[in-house]
Amino acid sequence: MSKFGLKVFAPASVANMAVGYDVLGFAIDGPGDEILIRDGTKPGLRITKITGAKRKLPLEVEKNTAGFAALQFLKHIGEDGRSIEMEIHKKMPFGSGLGSSAASAAAGVFAANEYMGCPMETRDLLPFAVAGEQIADGAWHADNVAPSLLGGIILIRDNTSLDIVRLPSPYGLYATVIYPHISILTKESRAILSDTIKLDQHIKQSGNLAFFVAALYKLDLEMIRRSLEDIIIEPQRAKLIPHFYEMKEIALSEGALGFSISGAGPSVFSLCENSLIAENVGEKINAFLSDKKIANDVFVSKINNKGTFKL
Amino acid sequence: MSKFGLKVFAPASVANMAVGYDVLGFAIDGPGDEILIRDGTKPGLRITKITGAKRKLPLEVEKNTAGFAALQFLKHIGEDGRSIEMEIHKKMPFGSGLGSSAASAAAGVFAANEYMGCPMETRDLLPFAVAGEQIADGAWHADNVAPSLLGGIILIRDNTSLDIVRLPSPYGLYATVIYPHISILTKESRAILSDTIKLDQHIKQSGNLAFFVAALYKLDLEMIRRSLEDIIIEPQRAKLIPHFYEMKEIALSEGALGFSISGAGPSVFSLCENSLIAENVGEKINAFLSDKKIANDVFVSKINNKGTFKL
Repeated sequence: MSKFGLKVFAPASVANMAVGYDVLGFAIDGPGDEILIRDGTKPGLRITKITGAKRKLPLEVEKNTAGFAALQFLKHIGEDGRSIEMEIHKKMPFGSGLGSSAASAAAGVFAANEYMGCPMETRDLLPFAVAGEQIADGAWHADNVAPSLLGGIILIRDNTSLDIVRLPSPYGLYATVIYPHISILTKESRAILSDTIKLDQHIKQSGNLAFFVAALYKLDLEMIRRSLEDIIIEPQRAKLIPHFYEMKEIALSEGALGFSISGAGPSVFSLCENSLIAENVGEKINAFLSDKKIANDVFVSKINNKGTFKL
Repeated sequence: MSKFGLKVFAPASVANMAVGYDVLGFAIDGPGDEILIRDGTKPGLRITKITGAKRKLPLEVEKNTAGFAALQFLKHIGEDGRSIEMEIHKKMPFGSGLGSSAASAAAGVFAANEYMGCPMETRDLLPFAVAGEQIADGAWHADNVAPSLLGGIILIRDNTSLDIVRLPSPYGLYATVIYPHISILTKESRAILSDTIKLDQHIKQSGNLAFFVAALYKLDLEMIRRSLEDIIIEPQRAKLIPHFYEMKEIALSEGALGFSISGAGPSVFSLCENSLIAENVGEKINAFLSDKKIANDVFVSKINNKGTFKL
């Protein structure tokens, strides 16, 4: 008897997006994670295989981001006793600031829902995916998970209640994401941040964020260019990323709309008004980093409005 | 020979709008200021009469908000030698938190432009109006002036360069503005504010602001209701306004979308999804304050999308 099975893909994502620390994120086309789900041989969910993770991820369902997200969902619909097997194929780097654990969590719960015949809407899977990512990094937040699962540019009003809205992505908007192969711990990247800011900084940064949101609805690229600036987090974290300001200068001189840190870094990103500029930004920064003997990956992508999907 | 003359009206406005301290403001239909402008008898701009100001406003053009705004504009177009007379009729309260000096500045420059046959677009009069208001309160900011002059809900990305955008006003959105007759100095109201805030507060408040902007574009009243909350400024300033939280409770229990302080106070405002709720909020709070022997004025109005206009 042949087993029923299916495969899903969840994309990487860029959290914070310069203007919206902890409240904005967007998905890119790739890289991402693949999860294969199929009939199992014993009652309960099991993870039978993990590739691309250099043995860093646990096979135990309760301790695995993807497994935990799927299990919470299966419990919710009363199907956690069913025999199910999962294979996880990590196809993106860890600790890169591109939402690797978020992609696993999104893929895990999405796969389980597909396997069960979609009893729930994708939108309603978000809490399970957030619970899954929490296993990996301890925090309950959706700025990577929500775009990875749902696609697009996501604004989160409140992480606790997961009150989110998908913002419009202007046609032609491209992202260039550069992952320099250096390691930053998210913990360190969080610890470096001052827990107070000046009221004036709040006024300026919230003006940038609100203007950026208006710019997306108006599809006004020049408004995006004027507002895409982080005066609070970037100046504190840039020092953890070698050559940050030189990369930024390259991106802006190539015509990028803006340049900042992806999530907690070390990846950085640019938004660009077309693929030509996005490709140029990627090539120039790749050449610059290579010249400095810093290995790096460049990903050029439209804003990914699809999110996680069945392959 | 009969003199050429005309009259303009500039409306009151509500700055901050709960979610956008120093970056948001909207105009209401009334109250407001009237300015009459006509041919003068001697070279130069003169203010010949001021009513409704209890002699608090100077007749000297250079020291008068409306006069200064008009004069800067006339200088800009090289017409400050022309014989012009202005009458200012204050038809709104001072120090109420409703942008009284902003309305005067907007009316002054708008009247001068009309008188000259509209050599400039209204949008381009903003810097002159901001300069006029600066005479009154020392600060260069547009959160009252821009809505008073241009109408609607205005978002200011940057007060220095006056980079602004007009946001959509959902049809049916009403404001109830209550002015309790107590006095608060803007200076005191500014001094009471802490100049630092927690990063967590910034995240939460900027999420509210960005979500509110998205809500306006989506015309989603429930999103407005969830986001229309000020966790930074209101808790600090509410103590200057007697019975603030009781008024807020009345407004919310009547179904208002939100309730907060207008500008630096003492006026307060509600946004409501229709005129019926807005009227009820006004009546109930009026009765409540009257019971406490606090004289007050209530203004119920749609969001005013017209701004300053020729009568």
